[in-house]
Amino acid sequence: MQVVLNYLKQNQARAVAELCELLRFPSVSAQPQHKPDLRACAQWLVKHCRQIGLEAKLCPTAGHPIVLAKTPRSKGQRRRPHYMVYGHYDVQPPEPLDLWHTPPFEPRIEGRSVYARGSTDNKGQFFAHLKAVEAYLQTGTPLPCDLTFVLEGEEEVGSKSLSHFLKTHRRELACDAVVISDTGMPGLKYPALTYALRGIIAFEITLHGPERDLHSGVFGGAVENPAMALARLLAGVRDDRGRITIPGFYDGVAPLSRFERAQAARYPLKEAQLKKLLGAPELFGERGFTATEQRSARPTFEINGLTSGYQGEGSKTIVPAWARAKITCRLVPDQSPEQVRRAVLAHLKKICPPTVRLEIEAGHGAEAYQVSPTGPLAQASLRALKKAFGAEPILMREGGSIPIVNQFKKILGADSLLLGLGLPDDNAHSPNEKFHLDCFAGGQRMSAYLWQELNPGLD
Amino acid sequence: MQVVLNYLKQNQARAVAELCELLRFPSVSAQPQHKPDLRACAQWLVKHCRQIGLEAKLCPTAGHPIVLAKTPRSKGQRRRPHYMVYGHYDVQPPEPLDLWHTPPFEPRIEGRSVYARGSTDNKGQFFAHLKAVEAYLQTGTPLPCDLTFVLEGEEEVGSKSLSHFLKTHRRELACDAVVISDTGMPGLKYPALTYALRGIIAFEITLHGPERDLHSGVFGGAVENPAMALARLLAGVRDDRGRITIPGFYDGVAPLSRFERAQAARYPLKEAQLKKLLGAPELFGERGFTATEQRSARPTFEINGLTSGYQGEGSKTIVPAWARAKITCRLVPDQSPEQVRRAVLAHLKKICPPTVRLEIEAGHGAEAYQVSPTGPLAQASLRALKKAFGAEPILMREGGSIPIVNQFKKILGADSLLLGLGLPDDNAHSPNEKFHLDCFAGGQRMSAYLWQELNPGLD
Repeated sequence: MQVVLNYLKQNQARAVAELCELLRFPSVSAQPQHKPDLRACAQWLVKHCRQIGLEAKLCPTAGHPIVLAKTPRSKGQRRRPHYMVYGHYDVQPPEPLDLWHTPPFEPRIEGRSVYARGSTDNKGQFFAHLKAVEAYLQTGTPLPCDLTFVLEGEEEVGSKSLSHFLKTHRRELACDAVVISDTGMPGLKYPALTYALRGIIAFEITLHGPERDLHSGVFGGAVENPAMALARLLAGVRDDRGRITIPGFYDGVAPLSRFERAQAARYPLKEAQLKKLLGAPELFGERGFTATEQRSARPTFEINGLTSGYQGEGSKTIVPAWARAKITCRLVPDQSPEQVRRAVLAHLKKICPPTVRLEIEAGHGAEAYQVSPTGPLAQASLRALKKAFGAEPILMREGGSIPIVNQFKKILGADSLLLGLGLPDDNAHSPNEKFHLDCFAGGQRMSAYLWQELNPGLD
Repeated sequence: MQVVLNYLKQNQARAVAELCELLRFPSVSAQPQHKPDLRACAQWLVKHCRQIGLEAKLCPTAGHPIVLAKTPRSKGQRRRPHYMVYGHYDVQPPEPLDLWHTPPFEPRIEGRSVYARGSTDNKGQFFAHLKAVEAYLQTGTPLPCDLTFVLEGEEEVGSKSLSHFLKTHRRELACDAVVISDTGMPGLKYPALTYALRGIIAFEITLHGPERDLHSGVFGGAVENPAMALARLLAGVRDDRGRITIPGFYDGVAPLSRFERAQAARYPLKEAQLKKLLGAPELFGERGFTATEQRSARPTFEINGLTSGYQGEGSKTIVPAWARAKITCRLVPDQSPEQVRRAVLAHLKKICPPTVRLEIEAGHGAEAYQVSPTGPLAQASLRALKKAFGAEPILMREGGSIPIVNQFKKILGADSLLLGLGLPDDNAHSPNEKFHLDCFAGGQRMSAYLWQELNPGLD
């Protein structure tokens, strides 16, 4: 094991340089013009996997390609434990560009962090696992298990092709667990295993009023303003206490146990620090829950974007023809995405006035996820985390959604180990996204330890 | 009088030909490359005014020149009534050009209309007044008053030079009323005097929440969503009955008299036609008022634009850092723009939650305008309209704002008579702008009658 750790230490500078190469690809899956960049990024990964000793190939999909890479299998051997490492090489759109201190696809090292879109979400995180397996392969250290890397290019747009891929590669991908580093840890001294994730539903609503923008002087007052109708519609889903007022919205929500609330209370980021971190005038959330609980264990109704009428400089005196809101709801165990979607849309239809026409575009959806924090997989993970980071790990829920975790469970029957390496101030999905190089190095060690801890008898 | 009317009738074909000459100038004030065309157009007007017997000159300004033309004054005579006729020879940009059936600056007669940019707004309308005065001057018919024409070249870009011109020519332009044909009439059988215009205040509000866009999974639920806060803020200014709930908003609003409501009821565009014209699912406005009243005689709170978060394709799971609304309120007599602005902003500040920071950017403002619909000026106008068009004229309010009317009142102390000759389907500001030749001829007769009706004792 020491030879693996030494290798990682000695090759840290090169690992960072390689990560920067990977971060240069503007692999923005939501923007069609970047399709060639996603392909180029995937090709780079295949080549890199081969260089470090993996058997790798590009698997075309209906969308962006999937990179499949395996440790070399010993022929004829009895079945060995098999783990899948999942990651995604696509990234969020970098906009608004003017808020970036340096261009999002020109990685910059400042202090102990690398700044670039995709650095923490998710290129830096899955790359740590590649570096760990490289250390085994390049030092000739025997791995106690088989590993398969699945790196997709559509995570930020709903992993549309992954499900088909998993189904058609079901036998090849059958495994004892999926290891995913695509979540967070509360701090460098708080390595963490995430045992629950929120689910999500996404949709877009557009209210159509007059068939064209109207002169607000000539017609204003005698016709509904769709932007006002939208404001009233959206205002009608939440009360002053932060509770969503949509009938049926909280149906099925599993109550938080005393154990879980105690775990949440261990989370080191307290209200005052959170407020400072976010730079918000005041925190706000559902009454009766701590901020940690609100953002990880309670469902939400979130407006992600608003568009209507004139947005340029100065004023334009119009009644806009339409107004639009992009919305996502975060879900918790055991809400059903379809049931929540039905409840939300039924409510919006019900409160939508007849003065506008409501158009709904449904987006992706995913169930929340939860695994037992006391099983052998979790215990092995906690040991690996402790050794890698030299600190007592914590058990936490995360508020984000990783829909594919549900697919791994459904299609492959495998639980997922969420060993996140992102820090709370990493600006995932925001301008100036970064990844801490100590998380990168610690993640590599954690990955190296993990294969041993998962297979203690096989060391 | 008959000799004047005969002259107009006999010279109609030539008048149309001259109007077409005027329409050939691409006098687009917003486009710098047309500066010479504006000058050439103004020079043509000066020459034409002199030809028909007026004393005319070109007055340079910081922008495009103003044409000043007067009927010859009799020396030594006692002070006679003096009226100013205002018009503008600049036009809106013709773009998008591909939607024009024939080129915008090559006038085309089809049926009883002349098609060209500027035909109804405003060249055709003020030219009718020039033709009327020509008839007096060329037939030797004595005018019962002095007339001064002020034809500016910057109306479509905010009349920037006019205020200075009025101030520096205050004595010369002192008059009993300003006559303006730059509005509309509902139909050929509905000649109209517009006796009121709405005022306006413009502003922009921005709600700032977290200092950057946040991952809605990681932080959503524990922090205010500024787009939701904006929706709730905006929803808090109007009730279900279309009434603005801002305390003090309706302060000073002059109640509609029974006479005014009767006049509004005569307006021929009824709810069903309006709904069809606008293509709205249903009409909506303040309960207790007709659509005509709502859009001309009642104040409004209108959202002109909304901006927040992600507006591109697909979804982006963020809590946006900020949300913005562009807003204009239309005002009616006797609201004070400054008082309404104070009331609106005080209310928004009051209902803004502490979870966001409210930023306000103030825009322009203008008072509403009204002349007595029963005073002698209005009565004379109505008689002239009736004689000219052979139909009972209607008294109407318009919902838009014409800022120069307030300048005439403030700087010259003069009321304005808005005797619009444009039809609702004239496409002012749109492709295929036209002007009806019956409106042109009727406008000439109306102008000829008007000077008599304004000065009955002096006939």
